[in-house]
Amino acid sequence: MDTEKRYGLAFTERQEKIVIDLLAIQDSICIALSEQDGQSFQEDNWNHSSGGGGRTRIIKGNHIEKGGVNFSVVTGEIPPMMKGNMHAEAKTFFATGVSLVIHPVSPKVPIVHMNVRYFESDAGDAWIGGGIDLTPIYVDDMQAANFHNCLKGTCDKHNEEFYPKFKAWADDYFFLKHRNETRGIGGVFYDYLKPENTGFQSMEDLWEFNRDIGHTFNRAYIPILSESKDLSYTENEKRFQLLRRGRYVEFNLVWDKGTLFGLQTGGRTESILMSLPQFASWEYAPVFEENSPEQETLKKLRKGIVWA
Amino acid sequence: MDTEKRYGLAFTERQEKIVIDLLAIQDSICIALSEQDGQSFQEDNWNHSSGGGGRTRIIKGNHIEKGGVNFSVVTGEIPPMMKGNMHAEAKTFFATGVSLVIHPVSPKVPIVHMNVRYFESDAGDAWIGGGIDLTPIYVDDMQAANFHNCLKGTCDKHNEEFYPKFKAWADDYFFLKHRNETRGIGGVFYDYLKPENTGFQSMEDLWEFNRDIGHTFNRAYIPILSESKDLSYTENEKRFQLLRRGRYVEFNLVWDKGTLFGLQTGGRTESILMSLPQFASWEYAPVFEENSPEQETLKKLRKGIVWA
Repeated sequence: MDTEKRYGLAFTERQEKIVIDLLAIQDSICIALSEQDGQSFQEDNWNHSSGGGGRTRIIKGNHIEKGGVNFSVVTGEIPPMMKGNMHAEAKTFFATGVSLVIHPVSPKVPIVHMNVRYFESDAGDAWIGGGIDLTPIYVDDMQAANFHNCLKGTCDKHNEEFYPKFKAWADDYFFLKHRNETRGIGGVFYDYLKPENTGFQSMEDLWEFNRDIGHTFNRAYIPILSESKDLSYTENEKRFQLLRRGRYVEFNLVWDKGTLFGLQTGGRTESILMSLPQFASWEYAPVFEENSPEQETLKKLRKGIVWA
Repeated sequence: MDTEKRYGLAFTERQEKIVIDLLAIQDSICIALSEQDGQSFQEDNWNHSSGGGGRTRIIKGNHIEKGGVNFSVVTGEIPPMMKGNMHAEAKTFFATGVSLVIHPVSPKVPIVHMNVRYFESDAGDAWIGGGIDLTPIYVDDMQAANFHNCLKGTCDKHNEEFYPKFKAWADDYFFLKHRNETRGIGGVFYDYLKPENTGFQSMEDLWEFNRDIGHTFNRAYIPILSESKDLSYTENEKRFQLLRRGRYVEFNLVWDKGTLFGLQTGGRTESILMSLPQFASWEYAPVFEENSPEQETLKKLRKGIVWA
């Protein structure tokens, strides 16, 4: 197939199916986002030194200040720090996924992140990971409830234990320990899912869940973008957006395992740091008045809030 | 003495002398920077939960967009990750230092960082660490030479082996591995210096070197600030400044051991992240024309350039 030729890899049947699914997820998301924005994505095809490559799509749009939807398929030697999760004799890995971060222009539109991925070692290890989470500049309870209900709907179709478990996992993962603050209102996060630990018959069945999460992105986020992108905002709201983006940068560079793993193992820096906003800001110990919208939002950046 | 009462600690004679020296370094630097800027520092006195505290001084000025000069003296239990450098029976530490980062308004004025510190364990370990480094937005060879010559002068007075060793150490330390880029033109960096590994008679003598580095800051940086703060600049130069500040954020959050150590061990977040700029920016794979001033600067962000 074309993707094999493009990335110089010999796929197994399962790998080929997953890669095709991921490229379709990337396509449908880019189409939906472009339609909302009025601007199209720019595509950057690249190859990885140890095999494979990717299709990075970047947007600098009317409503999206900086956004990227990245597909990649890479193979290589397993770094020592990852070996703990695998069979002792595992030497090389195959990893593929779609990852996106959208930083809107307006402080009325939340930042959003989504990632679905598949990982395999040459010793027979195989698992999926992924997640979607929302980072509103100002938390809107109704919007948060709709977003979580949408994710819960997808999870429930596959396994009713997934949503509560993966919602709690997202609360723990998207957390800035040094601020004692969550990144936003969370969503779902999961990793190392295998048929054995999820009650699925096969990896093929389990992959359908991950694929479904990828296709849930448009349903979960496009209505939010559509209804909030034209709302007016103040300079003060813009200032708060830049500070909240600063916290986003802190999370990605200090705590996000995927980012650190990528930067420390020689991943493609521009694709990894595509997640950072165009502009961010830091102030020393900013103070927000009691009962101000800013203070109300900061109070909601907590683990364990029931949104769905 | 007053400092003992203020921070609730019982100092040894050596600790008291070092704390007094550090407070004097902080004072003289703040006076010199204020005089250049026309705006004064705001002071924030704080206490640390495990003992000690600090005097954080912050400036939002006319020429300094965001700057902080922080003094702290803290004691506490030694985190497991640090124990490798000490006697096996060491349980608690005493650490004190002055740390500063200045982010100027103008892209014609370099960002600067300085830190001098003293560390002691309850098992008799004691060492000094510190450094000064300059991050010009646009590298100016003459300015870089003057800066390095000033640091070399101070080092040479104490030990002629110091400058070449600590200059190379700074090149290695202030390095963004994921960009294959130094943070700026470097300076000096050193850690774990003891009388035994430096040929000094006593810690008291060695401390004089660190104190001297602290007092070298004004001589090394104030002339640069003074001669460049009123130069005009373009929008394009401002854009490059925001991108270079983005790299500064990346270094501090991904690679700087002091920052990570502080954030992961419950240090005071606002004082630690005082080092981040008010505004920073990221673009996807920015391109600079061959022979442009931006490209010329990027070529000089390399280890091993002889400046002094």
